[in-house]
Amino acid sequence: MWIPAQLLKLIEAFKKLPGIGERSSSRIVFYLLRDRDVLDELKSALELADELKFCSVCHTITDVDPCPICSDPERENGVLCVVERPEDVFLLEKTGSFRGRYHVLGGVISPINNVKPEDLHINDLIERVEKESVREIIVALNPTVEGDITAHYLADLLAPLGVKITRIARGLPTGSDLALADETTLKEAIEKRTELK
Amino acid sequence: MWIPAQLLKLIEAFKKLPGIGERSSSRIVFYLLRDRDVLDELKSALELADELKFCSVCHTITDVDPCPICSDPERENGVLCVVERPEDVFLLEKTGSFRGRYHVLGGVISPINNVKPEDLHINDLIERVEKESVREIIVALNPTVEGDITAHYLADLLAPLGVKITRIARGLPTGSDLALADETTLKEAIEKRTELK
Repeated sequence: MWIPAQLLKLIEAFKKLPGIGERSSSRIVFYLLRDRDVLDELKSALELADELKFCSVCHTITDVDPCPICSDPERENGVLCVVERPEDVFLLEKTGSFRGRYHVLGGVISPINNVKPEDLHINDLIERVEKESVREIIVALNPTVEGDITAHYLADLLAPLGVKITRIARGLPTGSDLALADETTLKEAIEKRTELK
Repeated sequence: MWIPAQLLKLIEAFKKLPGIGERSSSRIVFYLLRDRDVLDELKSALELADELKFCSVCHTITDVDPCPICSDPERENGVLCVVERPEDVFLLEKTGSFRGRYHVLGGVISPINNVKPEDLHINDLIERVEKESVREIIVALNPTVEGDITAHYLADLLAPLGVKITRIARGLPTGSDLALADETTLKEAIEKRTELK
């Protein structure tokens, strides 16, 4: 059966992206071949990727190093928010409710995926705690088993440095429904209930 | 809130692809920034798109013009399969059950989307019928209202040329379940029942 090799390579390339299977990839590729404007826009956008790098201080994605958050004198000193991935920084920034600085671990400790503490940006987190006189570390890792393991690992490691370690709250998402919550979430929401004043 | 302009442009570019929303786009972009090999593969694949064009005879996507199907002397003469899009050619080729040649209309007649017969490759279909002494046209358009309108339009147009016009069968998909079929499909499956011999 004939099919142009270039077409196959295009479909293969899109299939490597997360959430894109054979059918979606094929749909995207034929769409691009029909709409050359969208294709050209995508090509120029991908060229811009070369201008993005990881911040040498906090490891988020940035076009200037250090990133504008790390070099902003207006941000609160002494409070670091620890996240797993660069995208988490932008998600938290959108809320506008954190005025300190960030530290991207680049992953979480995971025995299953063979991710060990030394694979993460933990050493330079310790350095920052000392250098930047950090008094509070807010752990904003995903509320998963691996997030928990990593949070406890950090707590043990940072305790001798006299830094306060907090973790973002768990409970029912605002606007959700008790009936849709899983048992663990409900259990934690009861245990971590707060007093109405 | 700070976010690198290049990052925004990348997310915008992927959002223009079919089936990709804000969240998927963001997920893909951060994935690409972490995995530069996948990014480079995608970039080179997109360069290959320039080598792909539409066949001047049948209008499918091809790297050589006319496409290998149109120029293959082994393909059966006199039978054309009419499809909506280039991708339909490859879908049908995969089945290996058609040995004639194809003709891609580039769309279907659609009053709602303002697609008129003159927007489609219909004129040169008529030319091919005469030039290639076509005796049968198999209409393999989608079984939709617009596919039906287009099929009947073609039948009326081609009738005076004495060419036989057939349409691919409708009914229950093999391996499916009566309970999952919609009413129209079931109705048609009963009406178009075939005798067991």
